[in-house]
This record gives sequence, structure tokens and C-alpha cells, in this order.
Amino acid sequence: MATTAELEAMRHALRLARRGPRGVNPQVGSVILSPAGDVLAEGWHRGAGTAHAEVDALSKLEPGAARGATAVVTLEPCNHTGRTGPCAVALIEAGVARVVYAIADPNAAAAGGAERLRAAGVEVEGAVLVDDAMDLLRGWIDVQRLRRPRVTVKWAQSLDGRAAAADGTSQWITGPEARADVHRRRAEADAIVVGTGTLLADDPALTARRSDGSLYDTQPRPVVIGSAEVPTDAAVRRHPIDPLFFPTRDLDTVLADLRERGVQRVFVEGGPTLASAFVRAGLADEMLVYVAPVLLGGDRLALGDIGVSTIADAHRLRAASVTPLGDDLLVVAHPAVEGDL
Amino acid sequence: MATTAELEAMRHALRLARRGPRGVNPQVGSVILSPAGDVLAEGWHRGAGTAHAEVDALSKLEPGAARGATAVVTLEPCNHTGRTGPCAVALIEAGVARVVYAIADPNAAAAGGAERLRAAGVEVEGAVLVDDAMDLLRGWIDVQRLRRPRVTVKWAQSLDGRAAAADGTSQWITGPEARADVHRRRAEADAIVVGTGTLLADDPALTARRSDGSLYDTQPRPVVIGSAEVPTDAAVRRHPIDPLFFPTRDLDTVLADLRERGVQRVFVEGGPTLASAFVRAGLADEMLVYVAPVLLGGDRLALGDIGVSTIADAHRLRAASVTPLGDDLLVVAHPAVEGDL
Repeated sequence: MATTAELEAMRHALRLARRGPRGVNPQVGSVILSPAGDVLAEGWHRGAGTAHAEVDALSKLEPGAARGATAVVTLEPCNHTGRTGPCAVALIEAGVARVVYAIADPNAAAAGGAERLRAAGVEVEGAVLVDDAMDLLRGWIDVQRLRRPRVTVKWAQSLDGRAAAADGTSQWITGPEARADVHRRRAEADAIVVGTGTLLADDPALTARRSDGSLYDTQPRPVVIGSAEVPTDAAVRRHPIDPLFFPTRDLDTVLADLRERGVQRVFVEGGPTLASAFVRAGLADEMLVYVAPVLLGGDRLALGDIGVSTIADAHRLRAASVTPLGDDLLVVAHPAVEGDL
Repeated sequence: MATTAELEAMRHALRLARRGPRGVNPQVGSVILSPAGDVLAEGWHRGAGTAHAEVDALSKLEPGAARGATAVVTLEPCNHTGRTGPCAVALIEAGVARVVYAIADPNAAAAGGAERLRAAGVEVEGAVLVDDAMDLLRGWIDVQRLRRPRVTVKWAQSLDGRAAAADGTSQWITGPEARADVHRRRAEADAIVVGTGTLLADDPALTARRSDGSLYDTQPRPVVIGSAEVPTDAAVRRHPIDPLFFPTRDLDTVLADLRERGVQRVFVEGGPTLASAFVRAGLADEMLVYVAPVLLGGDRLALGDIGVSTIADAHRLRAASVTPLGDDLLVVAHPAVEGDL
């Protein structure tokens, strides 16, 4: 059981963690407590190549000052030698008597820190305030599990599965509540992806905007996939974050590149061709389907070829929620397969 | 205000009404009460060409016995001379002092009975137990308003609007709860309609069955629309009710014919071509869309051409309900236009 002082230190460590950048490395915070429960030092991780949070905290103490202390850290201390040494060893060498952490390291290469600490006689307590820590680290953990950013594919459709009428008109299939929901979710994504077909057809700004048109504080990085040339006056070029252009159809390559840039959550809004490509490749971890109470018929389908030739190969989903948004319905679904997030 | 005795008489009149046949004419029941509230006589309508309910009840009394009595009747007494004389006149001539009815006659030709009674000095009270009476007469009233049977178009689809995979396989897109719901609704319809395309492809029995395979007590009449020849060994030919065959694409003609046969509620299960034809013609009063949590892609669409070329012409719907059925969703929708039922 974690003590009251340790719980409070963990909450503080989570706040410290948020000072670090979201990216390739996890956001981690740490607080060193004296045996009496007083804060001796604090630290956080400032990004790849810099000290891990617990080492950052220890570095602020005089040699020997951490002897018998408790290290509170939001992620299990690592057990591997990367650009820095293993944190588990640093804690052992500092004489720490007890380590309290929130989340076990999901990264096979780095895991084993708790075990190594215990083997050295350090008392270890894990899973403290794990839900709070997950709020912060879910995106990073997903990347560790998937070996790529987590992909949400969004599309709006009529009840009969069309993205537009026969002549291409589609404004507005869905209503203002649905559009506001999309923008809120854009603001939570690290990258927003469109195909060049949609870009040329709609010239989207790809910003996350409030109903009054103002920009959210956080914006997704615009990512354009496809070989068609993007006009110099395309709206996406005026996005507050520089867009990335991938003249390819190889989605794995795009996702690998985005991962290396620290992108954890990708929001695909890119039109039927791109949505179908992500679904077909099994790369849609989450699907947001905004369904308008309207029938359109015709051949402007929200999804095209997704590689299903017979019913046994259907992409079966698990609907996580069905939520009315104004007159529309939002269906949030995941692949109904083992290991889905 | 209706008295307690009148309310009880109305409940009894509704039970009497159900003894008559569902069909072209409304099911109507009537009870004649003495001024003291005792039942003097009862009657019901036995179908086109026979006495109306109130006249049937009066016929059981000696001349003069209804003088000063109250006639309780489930439908406003008629004011027109069809195959029988106006009931309003019969009641006036019998010396009835008060008439209590549930539902006003929606049929312009027959309406006006209450007015005629009042003009003759009879006390008239309408809208008594109107909800209970509507449960019985909704189908008939819809036919009067629409001048044709009310049409429910049902289809099952994947979330992306497909009725089958590319190779035509579709068993089972939706689960057992959805299928059971369909069969319950079949049992409530007067007719079930399929196109010859679906009939040849699937050879459906078109019966309303319980989960154990047994037949419901009431069965819809099977109706086959289309010009293709129906095999002599087609399952539909073994339906407990003789099927009707319409080698036409003229849906108005089919519905007019069905109306004349007393069909009030039509359940269209007929495959994408027929469903699209009903929607395109504006003849789908209600749509039941069973949506399975699955993506199929491909060109086997649940709806095809419904006559929409631009977004302004979209068939806009009002979703009356969205109900989970096992893993599936049932969306019940109506046209979002004035006058929808």
C-alpha cells in the first residue's frame, strides 16, 4: 500500500511529467521522499537524450542524501542502457530503500526494472494511481504495443453509407454537433491525415477549430498522403504547423516516419480512398463513423474496396459506443479481434 | 366527460370490434346503454356489406327500446349512405339521447356524423379512450390518410451500407436478435413483399417464425413483384397464405390492389432493387434499418439508385429510435417531411 505522502507525491510527479514533451519518449515525473515523507527532490524527463525523471531528481541531491529514501516515479524505472544508464541501477546505487511507480514499462527492452530493484533488496510498489498515469501515457503505451502510432479513421456518411450525392455535393451531410465533435477530436490528435484527392477536391484547412472559428490551443500536424501535386495556395500550407507530404501509398512507411517524429495519435480524415486503404491494411485501430439520418444512394461511397470478397472475410467491429449528436449518430468502433485497443 | 359505465362500455366495445375482420372496413364495436348505465345491446361490424356496429347493436332491440339510451361506439358514427344507410340517422331515428365515441372518422366521405347527431339534439362525446382505439384502428386510419397501405421497408446492412460481400454471401450479416425482431414484425404485417430477384437468389419462405422455427399465429400474405418467372418449387408457394404475383414495376398499382384486398400494413423485405424503388417513389413510410457492426466494402449495396443527384434532394429522415439488438443496431426512421406518420 502506498502511503498518503506517496500518493500525494505521485500526483505531483504526474504534474511534473506533463512539463516534458509528448513524443517518442514517455512523459515521466519523479519525486524523492525522505523516510519521514518530506520531499527531498523532484525531476522530470525533458525528452530523448536527456536524463530520465528519477535520475534528474537524484541529480539534485548531495551524494548520500537519497540513502533510505523513497523514489516515487510515474513509470517503472527502466532496466536498459540507452542514451542514459538503467535507472534501476542509479536508484540502487543511490541507496534508495523503496520505489513506488504507477505504470509498468510496456517496452520489452526497457522492462524488468522492478525485478532488478527487488533483487537488490529495494522495496517496490507498482500500479499506484495507475488510471491517472494512463490518462497521460496512453498514447505512448499504444505506440509501444502497436510499434506505430494509434490510428483513428473518421468518416461521415449517410445511413446508406454514402459520403456525398451523385454530383459530389456533401455539405452538410452531418450537422453542427457532429462537426464540433470532429474538431474537438482533431485537437487531441498529434497528426491529421488526408489524401491528395480530398485535398484537391475540398482544400481543407485541417485545423482544429471551435464553433466560433477560433483555433484550439493544440493543433494536429497536417499530413498529406498521395502523389498528386499540392497547389502552392492550398489552405493546408497556411496551417499553424508545417504540413508533411508523403508522395506514397505505403501507409506503413508513413506511420513509421510519424512514429519517429513522436506522433502517437493519428486522425485520418482523408476521404474514401484513404479511409478504405487504412481499413483494408488493418491499420484502423478506432473508427469514428458519423451517420446522418439521410439516404443518398448513388456511387459516392464512404468506403470503397476494403479487401473483402466473401462474408467470412468481413471486417467485424466491436461498437464501443453509439451516441446521438444532434440529428446524427456517432458510432465509435474497433476491430473485433484480439489485441484491439 | 364519459361516465364510468360509458368507459367500461367502450372497453367492451373495443373487444367486440376485434371480433370483426381486419380489412377494407374498420373494425368497430358498439354497446347500447340504458339511461341507468345498464347494457341493453351490443354489436360489431362483420366486414364490407354488413351492418355497421351501432346498427348491428340497435337491431337487437325492440322498436322504441333505445329511446333515451346512450350509444357507445369505437368510431364516430358515419354520415354517408354506402351499402348501408348513415348510422347517425339510424341512431337519431332510434331516439338515442347520447353518443360516446373514441375516434373521429378520418374518411372525408363518411365524416360529419357527430355534427349531424348534434344538429338533431343528440348529446355527443368524442375522443373517449382514443389511445386504446388507435391501437386497434391505426392501420385502417393510415390507409384512409395515405389512400394506400402503409409501407415499412426493411433492410439489413453493414455499417458501410452493404447488403452482402462482393461474392454475394450475406449470411449472417445481422445476428439472431435482429432476425427475431424481423420475424415479430412480419407477424404484425398484412403483406410481405419481395422482388423476383431476391426470390430467385434466396428462395425465402416469407413466413413469420419464432426462434424455434414454429410459425406465428398470424402470417403476412406473401407478395412477389417482378417479371421473372417464379419456380414451381419456390418456398413461397408453400406459404400458409397463397402468394400474390405482380409481374409489374408499378408500385402504385400493386399498393392499390393490396388496399382493395384489405391490406393495411405492407412489409417490404425485398432486396436492394425493390427497397430502392419504394424509397425512390416516396412510398417508404417507415424504414427499419438493421445495421451490423461490420464493414464489407464492394458493390453489393443495400440501397442503389434512389433518385438523388445532388445533396439538396437527399431523402432526409427522422430517426424515431435507435435500439441495440444483440451486436446490431436497429434504426427506425421516417421521411422527415410534413405529413409523415
